[in-house]
Amino acid sequence: MSTIFFKNKPIIIGVSSVAGPKECNGCIGKYIETKLDSDMFNENTFEKAETKMLYTALKNSIKNSNKIEKDIDCILAGDLLNQIISSTFASRNFDSSYLGLYNACATFTEALTIGSAFVDGGYLKNVVCGTSSHFSSAERQYRYPLELGSTRPPQAQWTVTGAGACVISNVGKGPKITSATIGRIVDYGVVDANNMGAAMAPAACETLYNHFNDTGFVPEDYDLIITGDLGTLGSRILKDLLYEKGLNIENQHVDCGELIFNIAETEYQGGSGAGCSSLVFCSYIYERLLNKKLKKVLLMSTGALLSSVSTQQGESIPGVAHAVSIES
Amino acid sequence: MSTIFFKNKPIIIGVSSVAGPKECNGCIGKYIETKLDSDMFNENTFEKAETKMLYTALKNSIKNSNKIEKDIDCILAGDLLNQIISSTFASRNFDSSYLGLYNACATFTEALTIGSAFVDGGYLKNVVCGTSSHFSSAERQYRYPLELGSTRPPQAQWTVTGAGACVISNVGKGPKITSATIGRIVDYGVVDANNMGAAMAPAACETLYNHFNDTGFVPEDYDLIITGDLGTLGSRILKDLLYEKGLNIENQHVDCGELIFNIAETEYQGGSGAGCSSLVFCSYIYERLLNKKLKKVLLMSTGALLSSVSTQQGESIPGVAHAVSIES
Repeated sequence: MSTIFFKNKPIIIGVSSVAGPKECNGCIGKYIETKLDSDMFNENTFEKAETKMLYTALKNSIKNSNKIEKDIDCILAGDLLNQIISSTFASRNFDSSYLGLYNACATFTEALTIGSAFVDGGYLKNVVCGTSSHFSSAERQYRYPLELGSTRPPQAQWTVTGAGACVISNVGKGPKITSATIGRIVDYGVVDANNMGAAMAPAACETLYNHFNDTGFVPEDYDLIITGDLGTLGSRILKDLLYEKGLNIENQHVDCGELIFNIAETEYQGGSGAGCSSLVFCSYIYERLLNKKLKKVLLMSTGALLSSVSTQQGESIPGVAHAVSIES
Repeated sequence: MSTIFFKNKPIIIGVSSVAGPKECNGCIGKYIETKLDSDMFNENTFEKAETKMLYTALKNSIKNSNKIEKDIDCILAGDLLNQIISSTFASRNFDSSYLGLYNACATFTEALTIGSAFVDGGYLKNVVCGTSSHFSSAERQYRYPLELGSTRPPQAQWTVTGAGACVISNVGKGPKITSATIGRIVDYGVVDANNMGAAMAPAACETLYNHFNDTGFVPEDYDLIITGDLGTLGSRILKDLLYEKGLNIENQHVDCGELIFNIAETEYQGGSGAGCSSLVFCSYIYERLLNKKLKKVLLMSTGALLSSVSTQQGESIPGVAHAVSIES
């Protein structure tokens, strides 16, 4: 059994979101709290800009929760950069304990799962969970330096420049986390580092299937089933794979990667990145949960567990996905 | 308060350790389960060899716990490589859920802390925690390719080639985890990527100080206070810093980095790496806990949260340390 149930139902008492201009001009732009004019955020490197975005999201989510930094027992954070330096350097300025996480773009629901267990079990009172990504820091680390001007293939996604963070607490008002399905690694042998959606869809399928099996829920129990960043192609593969297993999520499914941009020529399959699902959840989705326009959602961030070294050494790209059930 | 207490006291029911020839010829060599003749482990790259070591440790720790893979609800793993690929590819072959962690060389006690909370809170029954490192994969990623033959400065440590893993369960026999102190990031501005001990010692000092403050224990309550990989210089700095705060751990303190090698000319300050504390704990320390030669120990892995990019961009090296209290 890969699903855990939270008997005390930890509460998401506040959120914050920060994003670059491209994201702020997209479909959910008006829900983003801190809208940046430039994705450099007054820093001199992409990595430092990303760090500042995550720091800003962490800090503002604490403020928006009517907490002070001293109230926060632990920061749970992760990002895509080598040695998750955005998370480290963003968390360095806080006086809270720190647990660094890495499950690629699935890190946000990984953090929600671990944070909820700490709060639900009575071990910690308030934790903050945050993730970030940055198009320019990710491109030069995973693929090519931007200066090369490489052509992007049509199956590619566009890494989201932004960060999202939320505070989980044992008391307060807000949507509640009721269960979490922890995913296992699934690898169908995809080797194209530009085709993340195809690499992650099988893991997403397995986690969803396990979630419904473990909980007895059906897709219709949810107002929305929100995947992290499968993109358009990956979402189609997920729905096909689920259909083969007798599950139809057509009416409930949305993908953060598909939601985030006004899909134009350059983004092809939509957004991706560790900041994709956290940004969408900590802006648009959270607001709709607060307003009771959404009553019950399943948020499932999806991650592709590759590195440039694993790709160079001929490895395929394993995927992982963790799903968290949230009720308003 | 940064210390959490486990009321049901999760049990470490089995361990496994794998290491290269240098480690097996060291002071704790005879306690290591799988002794390798070559640090390539029949693979064609250092990274794949490290992956195989972690896989072997995870697998054998499950076997040594008299469990089968199906019994394991979740793998909690981390390592030093970019995007923790050793952990991903080692965990890919299991049918368990997977949570990837990164706190550099502090990852082992991070995994024990999160794993204990999951088991103690009744969310999961059995989890396996494992970490690895490899001298040759770490050198070429963090510093220079080995082929360059760079001279090592006297403050340098030698990354341990090996892996350790243990199974934490809600029932069974073995040493029990009673509490964990989650560390915060501490940065004293050290910028020398060869001087890990100095970068990590302030974080180690703060976590230890918080542990004694939160629990009311004194150093004499422990048979051993085991730091992860401060090395000789870092250990001296830790003891000096603690002495200024009125704590003396001289009689209880050992460092896994100091224990692991027969310190010769090349290792200078001793061992380091995410596999250092897991390897020493999952061999020598665990055996002494089982035999009741040790009754109560505090294991505190210590991590230096740098990347080659953060160093190139002029950042200092923050440290973090998490302490776990274990009783036989």
